[in-house]
Order: sequence, then C-alpha cells, then structure tokens
Amino acid sequence: MDRAPEQSADVTHAVENIVADVRTRGDVALLELTNKFDRRNVASVAELEVSVEQRKAAWDAQPAALRAALEAAAQRIRAYAEHQTIAPFSFTDEHGNQLGQMVTPLDRAGLYVPGGKAAYPSSVLMNAIPAKVAGVREVIMVVPAPGGELNSVVLAAAHLAGVDRVFTVGGAQAVAALAYGTKTIPPVDKIVGPGNAYVAAAKRIVFGQVGIDSIAGPSEIVVICDGKTDPGWIAMDLFSQAEHGEDSQSILLSPDVEFLNRVADAMAKRMSELPREVTVRASLKNRGALIATRGLDEAIALSNQIAPEHLELSVDAPRDWLPKIRHAGAVFLGRHTPEALGDYCAGPNHVLPTSRAARFSNPLGVYEFQKRSSLIECSPKGASELAKIAGAIADAEGLQAHAASARDRL
Amino acid sequence: MDRAPEQSADVTHAVENIVADVRTRGDVALLELTNKFDRRNVASVAELEVSVEQRKAAWDAQPAALRAALEAAAQRIRAYAEHQTIAPFSFTDEHGNQLGQMVTPLDRAGLYVPGGKAAYPSSVLMNAIPAKVAGVREVIMVVPAPGGELNSVVLAAAHLAGVDRVFTVGGAQAVAALAYGTKTIPPVDKIVGPGNAYVAAAKRIVFGQVGIDSIAGPSEIVVICDGKTDPGWIAMDLFSQAEHGEDSQSILLSPDVEFLNRVADAMAKRMSELPREVTVRASLKNRGALIATRGLDEAIALSNQIAPEHLELSVDAPRDWLPKIRHAGAVFLGRHTPEALGDYCAGPNHVLPTSRAARFSNPLGVYEFQKRSSLIECSPKGASELAKIAGAIADAEGLQAHAASARDRL
Repeated sequence: MDRAPEQSADVTHAVENIVADVRTRGDVALLELTNKFDRRNVASVAELEVSVEQRKAAWDAQPAALRAALEAAAQRIRAYAEHQTIAPFSFTDEHGNQLGQMVTPLDRAGLYVPGGKAAYPSSVLMNAIPAKVAGVREVIMVVPAPGGELNSVVLAAAHLAGVDRVFTVGGAQAVAALAYGTKTIPPVDKIVGPGNAYVAAAKRIVFGQVGIDSIAGPSEIVVICDGKTDPGWIAMDLFSQAEHGEDSQSILLSPDVEFLNRVADAMAKRMSELPREVTVRASLKNRGALIATRGLDEAIALSNQIAPEHLELSVDAPRDWLPKIRHAGAVFLGRHTPEALGDYCAGPNHVLPTSRAARFSNPLGVYEFQKRSSLIECSPKGASELAKIAGAIADAEGLQAHAASARDRL
Repeated sequence: MDRAPEQSADVTHAVENIVADVRTRGDVALLELTNKFDRRNVASVAELEVSVEQRKAAWDAQPAALRAALEAAAQRIRAYAEHQTIAPFSFTDEHGNQLGQMVTPLDRAGLYVPGGKAAYPSSVLMNAIPAKVAGVREVIMVVPAPGGELNSVVLAAAHLAGVDRVFTVGGAQAVAALAYGTKTIPPVDKIVGPGNAYVAAAKRIVFGQVGIDSIAGPSEIVVICDGKTDPGWIAMDLFSQAEHGEDSQSILLSPDVEFLNRVADAMAKRMSELPREVTVRASLKNRGALIATRGLDEAIALSNQIAPEHLELSVDAPRDWLPKIRHAGAVFLGRHTPEALGDYCAGPNHVLPTSRAARFSNPLGVYEFQKRSSLIECSPKGASELAKIAGAIADAEGLQAHAASARDRL
C-alpha cells in the first residue's frame, strides 16, 4: 500500500542544478544537456523543433486502419471533454451587491511526452485534446528523441490533436525550459504529462512558477468481481495493467474463493499469449494479489482504502454499488467494460491519479486547463453594509488600513 | 515582476529532515520539535489539542459586535460557496455505452493557520467553510502557539466555522503530521492554508502524499483607475495591501497623470492615519508603483502580464472591461468595491493565487475539497465497437495484453 513515489535526495539535487542551469543560461544549457543526455549532436535548439510539415508527413505515413482508430478515439475523447464545464455564475445579494465567478482558459500549456519504450500516442491525445477543448491558445509538446529516434505514431497523434509546437527535448531540462522559457521555447503556464523520476522531481521544483498536473506513480488496477465474469477476461484485465511495468499493481477482490482459483488457472494458461510475459510475471510477483473478501461490501471497503487509479466493478447491477465508492480515478462498470477500453477510446481521460492520490486528486480534464476568477461588484448601499462587517473584523485583526479602506465606502 | 517564492536550499534541506523525522517517529518527534521551536513545555501531543469546550468558550468571550460581524461574514462566505458546483454528468453514445463523471468530497482536510502576528480569524472562515460546504467529513486545524500564546479570535472562528479538531502545532512538523498522521493526529487527504517559508517547503515535499492548495507568496493588488475615483479611497486601497508586509505589492495603473499625482498627495496625507506606517512605507518603497499608461487598454494589458491576486477596476462601466481580463484571482468592479470587502465578507474566498499563479491557479473554493471520478459502462455491443479501436491503437503501442483484454469483449 505504501506506493507514494519516493523522492531520492540524489535525484532532487541533480535536478535542482539542471533546473537552475536552464533557468540561467537558457538555450545554451538546454542544448548542452540535450546533446549529452539524449546523445544528440545538434547546433541549436531551433533544430530540435519538429515542423508542422514533419508532423503531417508522420500522420500521412500511418496505415489507414490506425489513422481511423486514432481519429475515432480523438473524436470520443473530445466528445467527453466537451461535457466538462465549470459553470460561471452571478447572483445579487439583498443589498444589491453582485457576486460571481468567471472562467478563462490558460494561455499556454506544456505537454511532456516520454520518449523511448513508453512513448504512447494515446497519451498525446489524452493530454492535448482537453487543453484544446478548454480553449488553451497554444499547446507545446516536448518529447525526448534519444539518439535522434522518435516514435512516428507520437508525431502523428500530435498532428491529429492539433498540438501547436513540438520540440524534441526531454528530462528535467525540458521541464525547466517550459517553466522559465528560453529564447527558442516559450514559457508555459502549466506542465502536464507523465515522466521518469527526473521529470517528476523537476515538476515538483518548478511548481509555483507554473502549474503542474500531478506526480505520476506506477499504474494500478483493482478489480472487484462477484465471481460471474469469465475468469479468462479477468486474467487478461489484470495482465493489461501488469504489462505496463514491474512496479504496476493488479489486485483482484472477490468473495468467491473458487472463482479466484479459476482466475489463477486462467492466468497460468493465458500467460503464454503475452510477448511481455517477463514484465507481467515480475509485476504480479511484486505487486499482484488475488484476495478473498467476506463479501462485496468488504471488497468495496478495501478498494476505498487503496483509492485505486482504475477500479473495475465486474459485478451484476454495478450501479447499485457505485454510491459506496469513495475514491477511484475511473470506475469501469460491468463485465463488458475492461479498463483497456478507457485507456484508448471510451472517452474519459486515461491520465488519472495514482498512488492513493484519488483521495484528493482528479482525472485530467478540461478543468485542469482553465482557471476561475472571483467577481465582486458592490452597489453604494451594499458597500456601506459590507463596510460595517469588514471594519469590525479588520479592527480585531489589527489591520487598520483594511478597516479604513472599507469605511471610506460607508 | 519576478515574484515567485524562492526556495532556499538551506530551508529545503532542514525541512526534509523535519518531515522525515515526524514521518518516522510520529508523536515523539512532533512533541520534541514543538517544545523546541514554539518554546512549549508539554508532555504529550494530546495536551496540544484544543477541546470543543475551549473553542466554545473563546467564542462566547468575544464582544457581541465582533461575533455578529463574524457570523455575517460566515453566512456570506457559505452562500457564495454553495454556488460552486461541478456538475456530475452522464450521457449515452451511439453504441449504448454510458459515460459520465461522479463528484465526491475529500474524507479529511487539514487547515494550516499561522500563529503570531499573522493569525487571522478571517482565514479560518475562508479555509474551513468551503471544506464544510464541499462535504468534507472532518476538518483538522493546526495553529502554532509560540510560548503557549494563542489568538482567541482564531479559536472563536474555528468554533463558528465548525472545525472538527484543533491542534496547537505549527511549522514543517505540523505539515508532516497532517500528511503522514501520527498516533494522535490523523492523516488528512489535503492540506490548505498559508504559512512561512518552512511551511511552504514542507507542503512542497509532502505534495503527492497529500494534496496541497498552493504555495502562497506575498499579497498583491493592481488598481486600474480612470481618474474619477476619490484619490483618498485609492490611496487607502493601496495601503490596505501594503500593510500586510514589506514584500506586499501595490500598483496603481491610470492613464490620468494628474490623477496619479493627486493619489500621491493623498497617500502622503493619509499615511499618518496608519499604525502600521513603517511597514506600509517599506512595502511601497520596495514594491509599490503608480504607473501612467497610454490608456485603459494598456493598463489592462499590463495587468494581464502581472496576473495579480487582486484587481480593482475602479472605472466607469467596469463590466465592459471584464472580457479583456485574462488573469486575476479576484476582480473588484467599480469604485464602491475596495479589495478589503473581499478580504472579509463579500463572499468569495480571500485565499487567492499570488506571484502570477492566477495564470494557472484558482481561488480556494468548494472544488478544491472535492474530486471527480470518471465513469464508463459499456453495453455488450458498445464494448465490441470500442474493442476494435482500442485493439488497433494498443497494437501500435505494443501493449498486447491491452489489446487482448479489449478483444475479449469483441
């Protein structure tokens, strides 16, 4: 259960130096660090930008079936995001004062996309589309290209999602460049997207200078099953989480012990279907569990304790259980809703709180790319009424200029 | 303009040790650190709890006029907060899949209240009431009592706001106790409230283990005036910000140079009204400015660049200018709306983003004490349709268990 990402002091201090270096020396530092860490050999940061034409070419080069799948996923992610609105409001009190709230988009968002084996086009869609729906003026993506290699499907997804600019930089240096800006890379207002321990440490350091989404930990699933779902389906649902990495967590909770045994058998049998068998086995050994509970209520209580990123309710009448769920990033209801559909195309975001952060944090969404402003407009009479209240409390707090400023409007 | 709170490496490393100590040794460390830093001499953390009866007694001991003012403020803060709702939603796609969003409150919130000179009862109301409106089950307040001294109005406000438990601990050790829990202090899910550099550093470190609101910097105001407001009013509005501390920022923008001179005269004249004159003078010298702009449009552009915590639009027809405001924590519209009214009782929260964080961050509100869960429920036919899309993208990402889990439902 103790899954909060640990912060290594060594990593933190190394990243502090990188961030300070990019903040001070800008493009010069960014170029040096990128050439060094990503084994590049370029002469300017401008060379690290991927043009609109290159992204379009990457899109055109994909097989038609994949393009169609990405388009369908993007359309569904957009449709869901369009339901996410914070209502502006305005009301008038008994004294004629108008109180309200205004909602505006961020000017510029930075999207960190990991390179290498974890370069996922679906993440580009999930991060960029809500930003665009929110009305963000400019979305800037950074993705490292170790040794100059870049995943062409990631570029294709950037094209599809309407990302405005793309730079092949990564690591803490890319986060610092987005936070403070360099001559070539404009500063953003918020940085979203997953990354390794260096990226996470950099996000923690620049938090305050810019907004960040969250510190992503390993992926997790809890499956609650009443014992009536095909055991092979549940086995593969657990595998789909485990294949993310050796620290991923897959937990099945069921009151049906016999069913747990059948799932274990199915796991043994279907393991051979998996090219990532070694990763899956290690993940299940480290973090996997099939747990017999006294009933579904106890399973729900355990799940609330875990506050999982993903929760499958593979039970009859799943909606009946939903009011008991207190913490979960995303809930997958019913036997026909495997978590993998949510990863790609159901519509809701696949960027979700991990490591028990579902207790206090949110799926990435349109809200994360907007901000609210409070609005207050007092009538002369209303100001006079409020000045009496404010004056009395300001006096008690010893803030005489506050009291005088209020009472000027008496 | 460069106002982001600087992180001192010395403070960070000292706080890392404090946090680790409280995390490891719990109450024992918390007690030692509290006795040391707050010059206390108590034998257990339990002795540091302020009982319900003590809080009630503090409330009863306040003058009736102050109680009435606090009650009126609390009622207005609550009324505004009750307008803040994230709509849950649900819709069905063309294949019969149901997609939606559920909103639930945090279980437990921690409220940090500074001790000493900046112990403000209004902050207790502003932090606790939205948590209560959000449905948080338990609100735990911590407030240091240096030398055993505690502001009785702060306790009275805790009583009024319905804070559930109060502990007289502070500093990084209090933040660590709230984040990890000790035997006496239960762990919370999110920590809100302002504090000094040690508190800010501790919040940054525990972020991820718990949610935090933001890293608060010095308070700020931008006043935009068309030159037609009483110069004495504007002078006192600027003073009310400056009296917070020497690093507070007060800026007046006006296209009317003659008006700026009249405000400067009024400032010189009204300065003698202020018991905090030394602080106000230092703040204005360090961070104050009266700036002549080419017009109101340029004033708005400057304000958007500053992204102020507080913005007064002391102009004719202020609503006409509102659509041009891109970043501001709270906007005070019209000559009869001094910022001080918002600090206490207008209704909107006075906990607002500082140091340009209004570019990406929010006023504290009900939303900050709730979280969303995504909901996905596929029909058999709908799952089959989605499995085709998910399978194709999972293949491209090399995640075969994802593809198989999706295709099990084909």
